[in-house]
Amino acid sequence: MAGPYVGTRDFYPEDMRFRSRMFGVLRRVCESYGYEEYSAPLLEPLSLYQSKSSEEIVGEQVYRFVDRGEREVAIRPEMTPTLARMVAARAMQLVRPMRWYSIENFMRYERPGKGRLREFYQLNADLMGSVTPAADAEILTLLCDLLSGFGATEKDFTIKISDRRIFDSFVVHPDKEVKRAIGRLLDKREKIGDAAFTEELAKVADAKLQARVHDFLKIRIEDLSALGEKGEIEPATAAHLQETFALLGAQGKSAFFQFDPGIVRGFDYYTGLIFEAVDNHPDNRRAICGGGRYDKLLGLFGKQDIAAVGFGLGDVTLEEFIRVRGLLPNAGEKSGCYWILFPETCAQSLSIASVLRSKGLLVETSLEGGKIGKQFETADKKGRRFALLQGSEEVAKKIVRVKDLASAAQTDVPEKELADFLLAASLGAQ
Amino acid sequence: MAGPYVGTRDFYPEDMRFRSRMFGVLRRVCESYGYEEYSAPLLEPLSLYQSKSSEEIVGEQVYRFVDRGEREVAIRPEMTPTLARMVAARAMQLVRPMRWYSIENFMRYERPGKGRLREFYQLNADLMGSVTPAADAEILTLLCDLLSGFGATEKDFTIKISDRRIFDSFVVHPDKEVKRAIGRLLDKREKIGDAAFTEELAKVADAKLQARVHDFLKIRIEDLSALGEKGEIEPATAAHLQETFALLGAQGKSAFFQFDPGIVRGFDYYTGLIFEAVDNHPDNRRAICGGGRYDKLLGLFGKQDIAAVGFGLGDVTLEEFIRVRGLLPNAGEKSGCYWILFPETCAQSLSIASVLRSKGLLVETSLEGGKIGKQFETADKKGRRFALLQGSEEVAKKIVRVKDLASAAQTDVPEKELADFLLAASLGAQ
Repeated sequence: MAGPYVGTRDFYPEDMRFRSRMFGVLRRVCESYGYEEYSAPLLEPLSLYQSKSSEEIVGEQVYRFVDRGEREVAIRPEMTPTLARMVAARAMQLVRPMRWYSIENFMRYERPGKGRLREFYQLNADLMGSVTPAADAEILTLLCDLLSGFGATEKDFTIKISDRRIFDSFVVHPDKEVKRAIGRLLDKREKIGDAAFTEELAKVADAKLQARVHDFLKIRIEDLSALGEKGEIEPATAAHLQETFALLGAQGKSAFFQFDPGIVRGFDYYTGLIFEAVDNHPDNRRAICGGGRYDKLLGLFGKQDIAAVGFGLGDVTLEEFIRVRGLLPNAGEKSGCYWILFPETCAQSLSIASVLRSKGLLVETSLEGGKIGKQFETADKKGRRFALLQGSEEVAKKIVRVKDLASAAQTDVPEKELADFLLAASLGAQ
Repeated sequence: MAGPYVGTRDFYPEDMRFRSRMFGVLRRVCESYGYEEYSAPLLEPLSLYQSKSSEEIVGEQVYRFVDRGEREVAIRPEMTPTLARMVAARAMQLVRPMRWYSIENFMRYERPGKGRLREFYQLNADLMGSVTPAADAEILTLLCDLLSGFGATEKDFTIKISDRRIFDSFVVHPDKEVKRAIGRLLDKREKIGDAAFTEELAKVADAKLQARVHDFLKIRIEDLSALGEKGEIEPATAAHLQETFALLGAQGKSAFFQFDPGIVRGFDYYTGLIFEAVDNHPDNRRAICGGGRYDKLLGLFGKQDIAAVGFGLGDVTLEEFIRVRGLLPNAGEKSGCYWILFPETCAQSLSIASVLRSKGLLVETSLEGGKIGKQFETADKKGRRFALLQGSEEVAKKIVRVKDLASAAQTDVPEKELADFLLAASLGAQ
């Protein structure tokens, strides 16, 4: 029997339980900040991505085809163009600032590998309509709280921050392509190491420019004001970033954040804040998530620019980050009821089961009959907390036999008291 | 600005709120029966559908293309082949009976119209590994409870039931194509009306066969035993269906169900129970949902037959069914907090907001400053219950001004008591 299409996953119930709990934490934290969930089609016209997404995505990674009506379409490889399309369509009606999030699946034709699949899920969170340091600080604390929401601490991850304009002002060169090449190199620096970085840099930059890039990498947050005064970066950029850091500190979250000029982010569309959440595990120093401010992108889709700051958090890296640390462990706790049916009392038992469900209890029933020992075994394998049964004798006495599979205690409970008994016992188990 | 791809939908936050609540009811009811959620890739090899799905789906409706690695793939048009693939791959390990459900999106190339879109969501619920009347009764009461879960009653919908074997035994004809044509006609009967049905029937069947079909349509549930004794249908079929009805009655749900021999269900793969939930509104007597027993289908994907009974419930028809009746109304109730920030006290306010969130409160903040009257307006437009603010004077006094936007009452609350105050007031509002 064939498995799923290469680079995609089947989610069996046990996998889905983990995924639902993981997404549940993401939803809870996003909503605590007032972010509202949105959703969109999985197909978009291919033109939505052309000239607006990165060349790598459109040229090599997107799943594109021609539909039966001769339209060029694509399975969405990312959310931002769709978000931009939706916001542009209602730009005048939406109450600002807009706080939106979505958790959707995407497809990219990539070679599957560690942390990389062809179909993945991603949380996208975006704050639109505000350019203040408070807005930047909010998107950063949101990301921080999302990871903390799983129980991760500042030992587990660091969010590295910079502002795209620092690189743009500090490292000046007339040839755009040279600057792009340096940007790409900076993006790879963590992965390839300092030695290889210096070597590669020498291939694209002359000695003076090389020195400038090395100076750039030494900039510290406390240098920004002086650099602003000297005109090496915009004074407003320095003030904005320092204010953002002050707001993070006021919320007691400084330990999670670090200024790092080496964060550049490849995408051309970032216009200000850029950041990456990095796994602090020495064997796995990867970016878990990245994002930034893109004040000019939404304008490409509509009539007006709308300032925006946001990030995407993919499920594959996040799940690894969580599982490696044993965060969000499988509760493994028994729950619900398993009713062992007997042919002669089946109708009566099903009628009580129906009442129990209407009171919010989970009641699964056996259907096939068979030996009672085997039935208890099934109840146990299914992870149920209580086995319930009622033979002719119990029906006559209007009682139900309840076996607690956690303690093995057995109790005969009057039918009328059964729901309350099970509700109380389930609560006691938590 | 272009809208979404034809036949698909954007879900803005207000649409998504409805969808999440609708799917929330479906999940809650499925889980009360012990059904476990699963999920799967949106792309499958095209071969998964060939020869196993209906010709209409594979030939005309499926979105298919060749990927960059020359594989023929399809966007899933339905869930059952994927379910069959997943179950077959672990047939030996899974604890039976399996109760699985999923809520996923699907695509079919159709002409969009009332209740029909190209991208739709569907709940699929399947009970696998049991052939008993209790299993059939369970899938039927599950469907009934799903619709009742929205507050619908027996006045709103009826679940019509039959058994495919009754038609197969009672209407005998040597030419398979003639029988298929009659089956298709029976499927259309509700839509085209009795007169057109009789006329169409005359085109495909001789007088004797026509009479037999009309007799078939007159069969009542109480006739089944006698038909079994006369050998016109299998006695076991009669007994099974009568037992199923008895179990529905024992659970007090008879009013929701009706035996109707005219329910045939086009798919060839049904082997026993077949059913449709029908909207009882006189202007809209459509099937909301259909399903049945398919004991031979899973075997096509693996080494062994696994008995199964299940149904699919699409979101487009379900949403119409709910909205027309005003079920699941928008709570419209104000909730959460909107913190009106001032530049001089922003850091202090954000720090308190962060604490409130960690206690489970929803706290959205203003970011752009501006006139205070306008800010209160924004809080109101966003549907928040409380507006919070703290100027320099309040910071000095360690208090926060709380305005209840539902009652317009204003209270100054000490910072330390704020979380408890808001939690108590929010609970009071429910």
